[in-house]
Amino acid sequence: MAEAKLKVVLLRYTPEPERACAAAARQCNSAAGVEELTQKITGEEVARVLENIVKNGHHSVLEHAYFTFGVEGISRACSHQLVRHRIASYSQQSQRYVKETAFDYVIPPQVKNNGQALEAFEKAMQTAQEHYNTLKGLGIKSEDARFVLPNACETKIVITMNARELLYFFEKRLCLRAQWEICQMARAMLEECKKVAPLIFKHAGPTCETEGICWEGKVSCGKYKTIPGAELRERK
Amino acid sequence: MAEAKLKVVLLRYTPEPERACAAAARQCNSAAGVEELTQKITGEEVARVLENIVKNGHHSVLEHAYFTFGVEGISRACSHQLVRHRIASYSQQSQRYVKETAFDYVIPPQVKNNGQALEAFEKAMQTAQEHYNTLKGLGIKSEDARFVLPNACETKIVITMNARELLYFFEKRLCLRAQWEICQMARAMLEECKKVAPLIFKHAGPTCETEGICWEGKVSCGKYKTIPGAELRERK
Amino acid sequence: MAEAKLKVVLLRYTPEPERACAAAARQCNSAAGVEELTQKITGEEVARVLENIVKNGHHSVLEHAYFTFGVEGISRACSHQLVRHRIASYSQQSQRYVKETAFDYVIPPQVKNNGQALEAFEKAMQTAQEHYNTLKGLGIKSEDARFVLPNACETKIVITMNARELLYFFEKRLCLRAQWEICQMARAMLEECKKVAPLIFKHAGPTCETEGICWEGKVSCGKYKTIPGAELRERK
Amino acid sequence: MAEAKLKVVLLRYTPEPERACAAAARQCNSAAGVEELTQKITGEEVARVLENIVKNGHHSVLEHAYFTFGVEGISRACSHQLVRHRIASYSQQSQRYVKETAFDYVIPPQVKNNGQALEAFEKAMQTAQEHYNTLKGLGIKSEDARFVLPNACETKIVITMNARELLYFFEKRLCLRAQWEICQMARAMLEECKKVAPLIFKHAGPTCETEGICWEGKVSCGKYKTIPGAELRERK
Repeated sequence: MAEAKLKVVLLRYTPEPERACAAAARQCNSAAGVEELTQKITGEEVARVLENIVKNGHHSVLEHAYFTFGVEGISRACSHQLVRHRIASYSQQSQRYVKETAFDYVIPPQVKNNGQALEAFEKAMQTAQEHYNTLKGLGIKSEDARFVLPNACETKIVITMNARELLYFFEKRLCLRAQWEICQMARAMLEECKKVAPLIFKHAGPTCETEGICWEGKVSCGKYKTIPGAELRERK
Repeated sequence: MAEAKLKVVLLRYTPEPERACAAAARQCNSAAGVEELTQKITGEEVARVLENIVKNGHHSVLEHAYFTFGVEGISRACSHQLVRHRIASYSQQSQRYVKETAFDYVIPPQVKNNGQALEAFEKAMQTAQEHYNTLKGLGIKSEDARFVLPNACETKIVITMNARELLYFFEKRLCLRAQWEICQMARAMLEECKKVAPLIFKHAGPTCETEGICWEGKVSCGKYKTIPGAELRERK
Repeated sequence: MAEAKLKVVLLRYTPEPERACAAAARQCNSAAGVEELTQKITGEEVARVLENIVKNGHHSVLEHAYFTFGVEGISRACSHQLVRHRIASYSQQSQRYVKETAFDYVIPPQVKNNGQALEAFEKAMQTAQEHYNTLKGLGIKSEDARFVLPNACETKIVITMNARELLYFFEKRLCLRAQWEICQMARAMLEECKKVAPLIFKHAGPTCETEGICWEGKVSCGKYKTIPGAELRERK
Repeated sequence: MAEAKLKVVLLRYTPEPERACAAAARQCNSAAGVEELTQKITGEEVARVLENIVKNGHHSVLEHAYFTFGVEGISRACSHQLVRHRIASYSQQSQRYVKETAFDYVIPPQVKNNGQALEAFEKAMQTAQEHYNTLKGLGIKSEDARFVLPNACETKIVITMNARELLYFFEKRLCLRAQWEICQMARAMLEECKKVAPLIFKHAGPTCETEGICWEGKVSCGKYKTIPGAELRERK
């Protein structure tokens, strides 16, 4: 048993994702075939096409670029939030089939920074492990023994999302109102994305950053106030 | 703190769901408009059209019938499995916003039938509650304190699915290889469905029942052996 | 053969759709069960909850409200655009199975307002019908004879969408940059929606109306200029 | 104007798609992380894991493998069918933005093999082109002039689908009851897939081939009779 450490690896992605998306965008307005478009399109054109796409919000062509991540060191609380994003594919470590003999766990920063809380937290983890072991020792199956395991319990998951959904994911989960853990995970995913598709992900983030607008109303975190030109708005 | 009790309520559904689906099916092959088709189609025709649809697996027209359930008394372990069904809509009680002052919990049958295990289990629940309360008492936010709460913790959720997805859900989750809890929940949902759309859901269930075939291979539960004419098969 | 006339009928919808969505929203933040929430929630609370949801863009609870439309009198060009909306269900009159002995057709307004163009257009329709009949007379199957039928050819379709997707659909298709025909159809659908769920659909429309912003950049229609406080913006 | 020729190019796909899917499958049952699993898994293990997945129908891990096709030389009738597959991404040549000065067209085989029908068909194409040109000459916009263009009109489209959806697509569209044109296109797509992911797509096809069962009932094509051990079945 130990503190879990977040790890995000970009396992696979569409080769030359930006060229693929830009060629698909060109296909919509061109009499030529996409193979030809893919080969002929220059780097500058790719940049120009993608810039327009992102600005105008015509994001459907970004669906042709796929990204597969291996994620470790997140809590089950976090993975439960994550899988609510339905335009994505997941393969998650199963607590039915994998025995949790010495589970790792995620410690929230607020707990970590509070001596007494941290002590209570770690005791909670140990007690949970002991109860789990007791149940296993009594012949209870893993799938039932896991009922005593905490939300903090570490999980591993493979995630595949396309660039359009990733932009939406980053918009929602990099907002400071999102839970700190999924926010942290999203930030690590975005860093990986930027390495291989900088034009697509250059401006990914919450709407205060990308649109200069916060739509959160009364529950806004107030960050928009620190962004030049940004403002709080309400939909009609 | 007490044992949670499963409760499944059918809150809303498409009025006259079977007539709606049968009229939509007729629209595909008819020169008449769907309003006319909906009004004119007799009860016998509805039955005949739906029987053909189910037999031949042309299920797309069943997407026009929607069902909204209120579910209480399931564990977070169960809801985590549930929300992996992506062609559906969910609104779930949040552990970020709802304080778990005295959480209820789901006890697996295998645990319930084992005195020692039950004792350990209930102690685990109490301890988790105590640790949660301690953290709250130390000023930790609900969204972080919940990290010590167990998978057994009760949750409430609103689910909307269409009839096509429900048939798929019942096929997978009423299979005896599915987890007992989601299987129990699926059975309760199916009972509700049968009351208002008996023709659509008459034969819902695992493929051993609906197709006379078990595809589970080496991990089959063997139930097919008790179904006249049913058999174990492998895909090529 | 005659000019097709647009007809949009709301065939089915979730009973009390706004109460259903508001109760689902309440479930997220409440310890009570959804059946109780559904019964107890007052009309004023429904209004207040929905207003907040729409303002802040937390639209997921609107997925619990479903709407099924019967649409007639649209062209195959229009239905081809329509079915690109993937979070929806469709049952469309088939040109494989329904013989087009005297097809109706949609005439674009620009053609209708131009005598010469209208003449050419109607001749095109008649010629297409004649060629279709010739092929049928020579024993060609409907599914192949239809290859000579024009995009203008009328089709009928049953559409089911949830309120969240409908709001997105109206945002995109009521924009003046959308094709006139799908725009007209969307407007008729919105009118039907407003009758049964006025709170949800009160402010449905393009972003110039709902957000006070046009994101279309250089290709903007300019309508935002006529909306007090509205403006043209670009994403970063 | 000329006969369009089907062209299917595999533009992009997930690198080492089978290793990616097998590693994701292993993640579900393993305590190790997916990066390690991806590196360590041997070719034999990949083969064994994938064989099990396909046999048992546990296809969700196949969603991590993506394939992007460029398709040319299909009719608008075919693309209208194609885009009804909703778990996929499309970028299609637009008749709103691309002027059809000399459109190519798809000729159904039944028409091609019938001298009189072919003559009528080609005349239909020419007349449609003339009417289109007339309308354009009168100042009608492309988006409206296209109303006179036939279903046979050639289109180009970029398609992205994952392996799970592709298997479903091939099951439905390689069935002899599917339309000949989409069947032909599906066959060409499958050939491309087999080159880069032979284990996943080895047995793709209609259920008469993969399950030894035809579910089509009275409308069955009868092909199952030629497959040793295959049979006609009905769902209960």
